[in-house]
Amino acid sequence: MRDVSIIGIGQTAVGEHWERSLRHLAGDAVLAAMADAGVERADALYVGNMLSGLLTGQEHLGALVADFVGLRGIEAIKVEAACGSGAAALRQGYAAVAGGLHDLVIVCGVEKMTDTVNAETTTGLVMAADADYESVHGLTFVAINALLMRRYMHEYGVAHEDFAPFAVNAHQNAVGNPNAMFRRPITAQQFARARMIADPINLLDSSGIGDGAAAVVLAPSGMVGKGQRGRAVRIRASSMATDAVAVHDRRDPLWLSAAEASAFKAYRQAGVGPRDIDLFEVHDAFTIMSVLSLEASGFAERGKGTWLAQTGEITRQGRIPICTMGGLKARGHPVGATGVYQVVEVTQQLRGQAGDNQVPDARLGMAQNIGGSGATVVTHILEAGG
Amino acid sequence: MRDVSIIGIGQTAVGEHWERSLRHLAGDAVLAAMADAGVERADALYVGNMLSGLLTGQEHLGALVADFVGLRGIEAIKVEAACGSGAAALRQGYAAVAGGLHDLVIVCGVEKMTDTVNAETTTGLVMAADADYESVHGLTFVAINALLMRRYMHEYGVAHEDFAPFAVNAHQNAVGNPNAMFRRPITAQQFARARMIADPINLLDSSGIGDGAAAVVLAPSGMVGKGQRGRAVRIRASSMATDAVAVHDRRDPLWLSAAEASAFKAYRQAGVGPRDIDLFEVHDAFTIMSVLSLEASGFAERGKGTWLAQTGEITRQGRIPICTMGGLKARGHPVGATGVYQVVEVTQQLRGQAGDNQVPDARLGMAQNIGGSGATVVTHILEAGG
Repeated sequence: MRDVSIIGIGQTAVGEHWERSLRHLAGDAVLAAMADAGVERADALYVGNMLSGLLTGQEHLGALVADFVGLRGIEAIKVEAACGSGAAALRQGYAAVAGGLHDLVIVCGVEKMTDTVNAETTTGLVMAADADYESVHGLTFVAINALLMRRYMHEYGVAHEDFAPFAVNAHQNAVGNPNAMFRRPITAQQFARARMIADPINLLDSSGIGDGAAAVVLAPSGMVGKGQRGRAVRIRASSMATDAVAVHDRRDPLWLSAAEASAFKAYRQAGVGPRDIDLFEVHDAFTIMSVLSLEASGFAERGKGTWLAQTGEITRQGRIPICTMGGLKARGHPVGATGVYQVVEVTQQLRGQAGDNQVPDARLGMAQNIGGSGATVVTHILEAGG
Repeated sequence: MRDVSIIGIGQTAVGEHWERSLRHLAGDAVLAAMADAGVERADALYVGNMLSGLLTGQEHLGALVADFVGLRGIEAIKVEAACGSGAAALRQGYAAVAGGLHDLVIVCGVEKMTDTVNAETTTGLVMAADADYESVHGLTFVAINALLMRRYMHEYGVAHEDFAPFAVNAHQNAVGNPNAMFRRPITAQQFARARMIADPINLLDSSGIGDGAAAVVLAPSGMVGKGQRGRAVRIRASSMATDAVAVHDRRDPLWLSAAEASAFKAYRQAGVGPRDIDLFEVHDAFTIMSVLSLEASGFAERGKGTWLAQTGEITRQGRIPICTMGGLKARGHPVGATGVYQVVEVTQQLRGQAGDNQVPDARLGMAQNIGGSGATVVTHILEAGG
């Protein structure tokens, strides 16, 4: 299979875009990515999105977005894997280029959660869980994560305050990201006093949902767009794994076996290990998810994920900087777009375009996008220089 | 890229399966396809589905179905392209095997439209249209097709009764298909007297929606499953094209340019033309769609699609047999599953397993799955002998 590079990136700010529809958001990101890549056409478009049907009464986003950005006629689909939809779409684009199906592909993640007409966002998010065995009992998506966090605290003797550094780090990094939703620092004290959402998850354990879109342009490595503005970044690994959707069906609810499988497949493909990774865009939908992801991906021992944060190793100066542009927590979590945002941000870092948030000498970056509470995990490893 | 073959097929009957949930339907089809292929594992699962989120509150079907059929852990996603979701999922599976990403892939199309909890099916189907510019005005999906049919009748001087042979042929063929929803013949008189739905579309112009699932197992050509029951069938071509979602945005509402692009790309890939095709599974969601698809795909001149049917050329004894197992009209149209049903039925024909419905000496079969009123069109050409 061919090596694949990212030759262009685009994103909208994450927030409440009352005046922008789904197609406008996607269009903004795609056109920005095409301009950045210096291309005016593409062979195919892969759209990652979870909630457009329920929330805005619009499916069929492949054809819709392709037409709206001036690419009427090209192959185009929507890919859905709950909160992992963005990276799942990227993986389809990667496979198309790597396998020789297409030479120039656009991947866009988009979610519109403000100004929706049909349903509440909470009703939408729980579609990531098992409708017949979880949500039927009235569990919300945050409640499922709360059960995991409570169990983790019990099992490993960890206090709620031990999770604070994840939120503090994310907010600190969001300050320097013009596209982030919450560009203000928070303190551990504020974290401790934040309003309870689903015990023990409070407001500052939780990522902010919002509207947004991010896009990348993919091409075989070595191919350069005319007028390409940024350096290409190579996709060294792309991998996906799944697990039971219902948490109670898993062998061990505190071990994300799909994250482990996905991360270690990616390490093998790239020929690297966790120690070689210079930054890691973690799927911090809730602080507990960061912990479980870091442990399953080999960055911390089991039960020691919060320790990694407490010792400062997750900051830009630490051993494994995470959520370097604010993460889901503070950049914001437009669900089906998140996986593409993560990869756009890793690309910014590897190009040296991360501004105040730059991780020095970043060469290898990883992004892990999680669907549901760990049932779908997609991992990409990117390398500077395409 | 590698040649890809279908080495196993499975399907449920289409109907009102009040006692079977979404995952059971998908499981039945996938396990049947795996048994038919003689395989007990797979590298990846691609699920085509349009409406599970809105209708049953369940997204994340990739991981859900993979786990339910005993394949927990494998790569799995849902692919959505409105009513073209099934064939769009097949195309992803095809690309994965052809490109070398995977060796053994399962594609499943599934839709559950009975016993839904959240919304009416009509609300769901119109998500294939443009929410901001079509459905916002109260247009239903059948109304959009009615506008097309009315315009076609006006433009080409065709009467409503001229469409009768499509419905009559589909029902006739469904009689011999144990998985079809409406296994009874109808007459042109019954067609003429059927209840009006959205003038000029009446009940017998319209396909029946239902629950159902169909699945195929894909592998590189030449690879044979241990205990494989049926002959392999080779995918000679796989192609997809799109158009504007909103009908009023198209250059010519009566010409399915995406069907033309998709079909002729497929002919080029297979090195054949319309005359070489022995049977054609048409996306007859409404009789007008059959006509437009046949014309755009090169089987009839513009404005002459009904003539092809009136002269008997679409029956099993005609020049281009269509809807040989009942089509969407009479086998039933479980929306996101339909594209996979079509391919399963072509495979039955090319294997000589179509029973009373066998098209004699069928060697090349085509299936065309349409999303919306022509905005996404996916065409596959299959050849007997894998």
